[in-house]
Amino acid sequence: MNQTLQALLAPRSIAVIGASDHIHKIGGRPIHYMREHGYAGKLYPVNPQRSTIQGLPAYASLDALPEVPELAIVVVSGEAAVSAVRDCARLGVAAAIVIASGFGEAGEEGRRQQDEMVRAAAGAGLRLVGPNSQGLANFGTGTIASFSTMFIEVPPQDGPVAVVSQSGGVSAMVYGLLRGQGIGVRHMHATGNEADITVSELALAVAHDPDVQLILLYLESLTDPAVLAEAAAVARRRGVPMVAVKAGRSSAGQRAAASHTGAIANEDRAVGAFLARHGIWRVDDAHALARCAPLYLRGWQASGQRLVVVSNSGASCVMAADAAEPLGLALAPLAQATQAALAERLPGFAATANPVDVTAALLTNSGLIGEVLPVVATDPAADLLLLDIPVAGMGYDLPRFARDAAGFADSAGKPIAVAAWQPPVATAFRAAGVPTYASAADALAAFAQLAAHQQLLRDVAAEDTLVAAHRPPARNAAHAAANTAGHTLSEAASLARLASAGMPVVPHKLCHTVDEAVAAWRELKGPVAVKASSPQVPHKSEHGLVALNCNDEHAVAQAFLQQTGILEKLGATCEGVVVARMERGQRECMVGAHWDPVFGPVVLVGDGGKYVEVLRDTAMLLAPCSEAAVARAIAGLRIAPLLAGVRGEPAVDVAALCRIAVRVGALMHEAGGALRSIDLNPVMVSAGGAMVVDALMEMAAAAPPA
Amino acid sequence: MNQTLQALLAPRSIAVIGASDHIHKIGGRPIHYMREHGYAGKLYPVNPQRSTIQGLPAYASLDALPEVPELAIVVVSGEAAVSAVRDCARLGVAAAIVIASGFGEAGEEGRRQQDEMVRAAAGAGLRLVGPNSQGLANFGTGTIASFSTMFIEVPPQDGPVAVVSQSGGVSAMVYGLLRGQGIGVRHMHATGNEADITVSELALAVAHDPDVQLILLYLESLTDPAVLAEAAAVARRRGVPMVAVKAGRSSAGQRAAASHTGAIANEDRAVGAFLARHGIWRVDDAHALARCAPLYLRGWQASGQRLVVVSNSGASCVMAADAAEPLGLALAPLAQATQAALAERLPGFAATANPVDVTAALLTNSGLIGEVLPVVATDPAADLLLLDIPVAGMGYDLPRFARDAAGFADSAGKPIAVAAWQPPVATAFRAAGVPTYASAADALAAFAQLAAHQQLLRDVAAEDTLVAAHRPPARNAAHAAANTAGHTLSEAASLARLASAGMPVVPHKLCHTVDEAVAAWRELKGPVAVKASSPQVPHKSEHGLVALNCNDEHAVAQAFLQQTGILEKLGATCEGVVVARMERGQRECMVGAHWDPVFGPVVLVGDGGKYVEVLRDTAMLLAPCSEAAVARAIAGLRIAPLLAGVRGEPAVDVAALCRIAVRVGALMHEAGGALRSIDLNPVMVSAGGAMVVDALMEMAAAAPPA
Repeated sequence: MNQTLQALLAPRSIAVIGASDHIHKIGGRPIHYMREHGYAGKLYPVNPQRSTIQGLPAYASLDALPEVPELAIVVVSGEAAVSAVRDCARLGVAAAIVIASGFGEAGEEGRRQQDEMVRAAAGAGLRLVGPNSQGLANFGTGTIASFSTMFIEVPPQDGPVAVVSQSGGVSAMVYGLLRGQGIGVRHMHATGNEADITVSELALAVAHDPDVQLILLYLESLTDPAVLAEAAAVARRRGVPMVAVKAGRSSAGQRAAASHTGAIANEDRAVGAFLARHGIWRVDDAHALARCAPLYLRGWQASGQRLVVVSNSGASCVMAADAAEPLGLALAPLAQATQAALAERLPGFAATANPVDVTAALLTNSGLIGEVLPVVATDPAADLLLLDIPVAGMGYDLPRFARDAAGFADSAGKPIAVAAWQPPVATAFRAAGVPTYASAADALAAFAQLAAHQQLLRDVAAEDTLVAAHRPPARNAAHAAANTAGHTLSEAASLARLASAGMPVVPHKLCHTVDEAVAAWRELKGPVAVKASSPQVPHKSEHGLVALNCNDEHAVAQAFLQQTGILEKLGATCEGVVVARMERGQRECMVGAHWDPVFGPVVLVGDGGKYVEVLRDTAMLLAPCSEAAVARAIAGLRIAPLLAGVRGEPAVDVAALCRIAVRVGALMHEAGGALRSIDLNPVMVSAGGAMVVDALMEMAAAAPPA
Repeated sequence: MNQTLQALLAPRSIAVIGASDHIHKIGGRPIHYMREHGYAGKLYPVNPQRSTIQGLPAYASLDALPEVPELAIVVVSGEAAVSAVRDCARLGVAAAIVIASGFGEAGEEGRRQQDEMVRAAAGAGLRLVGPNSQGLANFGTGTIASFSTMFIEVPPQDGPVAVVSQSGGVSAMVYGLLRGQGIGVRHMHATGNEADITVSELALAVAHDPDVQLILLYLESLTDPAVLAEAAAVARRRGVPMVAVKAGRSSAGQRAAASHTGAIANEDRAVGAFLARHGIWRVDDAHALARCAPLYLRGWQASGQRLVVVSNSGASCVMAADAAEPLGLALAPLAQATQAALAERLPGFAATANPVDVTAALLTNSGLIGEVLPVVATDPAADLLLLDIPVAGMGYDLPRFARDAAGFADSAGKPIAVAAWQPPVATAFRAAGVPTYASAADALAAFAQLAAHQQLLRDVAAEDTLVAAHRPPARNAAHAAANTAGHTLSEAASLARLASAGMPVVPHKLCHTVDEAVAAWRELKGPVAVKASSPQVPHKSEHGLVALNCNDEHAVAQAFLQQTGILEKLGATCEGVVVARMERGQRECMVGAHWDPVFGPVVLVGDGGKYVEVLRDTAMLLAPCSEAAVARAIAGLRIAPLLAGVRGEPAVDVAALCRIAVRVGALMHEAGGALRSIDLNPVMVSAGGAMVVDALMEMAAAAPPA
């Protein structure tokens, strides 16, 4: 751990500036918590009004302390907080947590004060958390530099989970939901306004904590993806799953985020591509953040997405099967041998195929769960096991069920979860240590996440061997350049650049006279497209600068003359006229790319044609990427079955399409910001290959620094 | 209420055959429950072994009773149950509930016994519930003919909800979930094997109960849609919402349903079309059945789908906004005047646009909720109000919040819900009578359902004025005919039939000689399609029987000769060759229809072309239907924006497409089973209209009875 993180998460000494004697005041709570939860370092309350605080000697000022503390918790507000940060900077405090609100989130004057704190800190190497932060809490070291009341309402217990959140409210919610499932929490950190330290940095810190087995994040804006990528890499190496909410997906959500933490909107699809590339599973809210924790923490590996459902309710069997399908969880019939073994243990009318309905026989044979689970677990159809017990009241031997399920969970090494909405039933299973959910829908959502996340992590590992780990460039001049309006290349120049990058482009010729155009048509032997080539007119068809299916001298000549005439009228440079073979593929696809201001180059691939913006059947990936990654993305599109060949058509050459996408990504990445965007639509894809037919490239306004 | 329903839900006398003195045995529980919950009729325990049962005089047999009971509860099993049903039939008992299991669901011998019960009952006009039924419970009359233990675990309270379910487990779950929300339940019925009485019939019965305000159904198979349609109509007239799970959507679910209740698989899209046509809202599981109940029962009408979110957590504002968008709930910014009024009440840094972040100011001003809600409620953007309180522990005046929210809920007449995962917070709001959910996602799902269901009910009312209420034909010979392999009409015959039904079909001519074909081409003035017409070869392209874009004498003649040659080789009747104008529309759509064995005629409309089966961008409606209903269905398709006109294209004539769909539906409906299916693909749709280009009609094997 570097010095900053040491100072934040395991400081040897802490000053509380604005300390209170009252354990329920904001300035009193951290002191109270730290003494309760075993903080072993030096604790210095700073308060000029008192000689002791909660029994500890109090100090009139930071200067009066017997040593320079590693960490300062700043509870005072407004100008006093700015002044406290200045003192910390002057004395060489390593880190300060500014709890007070009323700064960057609260208008002009607050923003000015926040900027002043940042300036003072930066000059002295002091790192800041907040302002407007609920604080940090590390139950491993007892450093509870937080004023959350949640630690009073839901008693803490040190454990394997780290929660890092921009929002104090979300960190407290997730903490509460985890504790409600009986799960211990090691870290609960909230970064607030993120004037300096971000969620990414704290994620990196907790990823290094050897006791942490699961990391849950809440982000409203993401400005330092390289740091989060590093945190994710550390977590992957340690086998620690990382799950994140990145809020502000909708336009209303972005508006709310801007007014909550001043968050700058990220392009949401790029966020998704970034998180996926680094193996961070994305969910939508605090409940979903906590949901899969019991499964992750058992350390189970889902061998696949095949589900077996065991229930004592026939209807629950039916509903669970229905709910599983849209989640991609397959209920395969159990093998004959498995069914025979089940039939020996179950009444004649019980269903043994999968779902397995043990029926009301559970009432008369309380050992049935312990007998049935090991049998189904051996079946090849069983990657995941759901035990759905909707009704188990009077007459049922709940303690026995829970004991048997727990025994199986401990020995089988397969993911198992219980669905039980009745509180006593849920409590019994949960107390025995079996992951337990209030509904089958919840349990299945958790299973789907476990299996898909573990598959994603395998894909990321494979991608890392194929593509040097992608590190999004830091925000620099290159980005700025890529994000100011630039200039487009002409059709001819775009095609030439793509061809020189090894991409298959439509056979064509740039012609400067009617005779050249006619000669080109003859050479291409068949119908041609005639397209004026000018860097100033990127959208040719809108100006009548595209003539398709020209197949005689007259048509070609007429198109040439017409188009050069139009360009002249528009006052646009004419680089010539492109005469290109009319190319028909089995499917019109598209490949695009642009430079995202935060994540750098991203690639888009999918269904092409003129409705691409409306039908939006495309996938986004970070560049650079491998052919395998593009192929996985394409497999998730609605058009995927068409590409695989239907109604007697051959499969198209998806690999050729993937190669184009990979090369487009590489081109963007290598240009490092000099290229603003690439738009290839259509890319004609057939059984025999793929070919770029139309191309538009846009350069950044200014060349990036070398 | 007819006599059967009177006997089941409000009998004047009840015999319990197999009565037990033990209040926790299956034969004892109904007697115990009825005495506990005020059943006022005569109760006759039948048990030859005892002289009294639970203090009541017991009888040795049904014959020994002082009167013929209206209802018999048959607890004895196997052959004794069959014999009890026979006794009931002989004596003229009106209805019997057979609790015992081990019949239709349990193999050959059980099925035989079940059939025997049905035969005995039918002969005497005795109606049966079950076998394998948990029983019926009506807390309005105290007729608790049920052995569910749930009434012990979760104390009953009479109330406005009726739960009717094939599964006893689901009825108990929904009962429990409702009671957990503090909602009273009047009816909780389970039909089990449905050897006679179905969920539909009981739904109709409870729809007539004047105290019932909400009906929740669980179905595994639906065999009598006409009865359910009638129940839904009664409920709609009374303003009682009806919500249903129809399980067995997936193939695994259908397999499970078959083994659970012997359910016959319904075509799931037809189920969806049926439920929608009758204003029954479809959900997926027991939790979703109960979810919207608190909102329905307030009697609130959602004026639209515009949502305002008020929270004391900025992050919850962001997440709620994100979650609302995919549910179709729009967060419009509040009006300037509203924001100004909020600004007077909130701190300067609070967000007032929507979501409204009241911030931690709620800690210092406990009256804030009561001040803010009435202000936002007057805004035009407020159809629905979510109060999201993720954290409200120490220091918050919860009772005040709950009181203020409840006061607002009572007076404002607008739907409001609270999201609160912390049990004490949820309890406070729930106790005050405010609909309360454990997560914003749950609350928003309930809101989305309320608003969309109420819109559906308005649509159904409109449809009822446009189309005479559709009553699915009973299962009869016509259905049987429509569902056995029939014979196809030729292209020419199909087009002729459609044209005579008033549909625009492509200009074409059926030609019998080369000369006729060439003359037809001349007449049509432009490229033509040449298609052999034979009733025996419905899939023409597969056999090379379609030639497109023929535009000279030679091409037309060659196509004619080639195709007639192929037909000869195939040994198929040649009705001639269709020469049709090549028609290009802006969009290739499709209209189809078929005769569903349960629901009768259904119409399919959507994206056409050769990939229709793969891309599946189509909607299904029951026939007959109105143009307005088809237009609503089309508006939900992925291609909808394309039809509305994009990229400078004009909007296509969707109304013309709707008219074709309506006429296809009418044709199917009027044919009453004689027509098995109609497949029009493509239907070319342009700005100027729609036109059927390819048509295939299939007749039923046997003509239906007149």
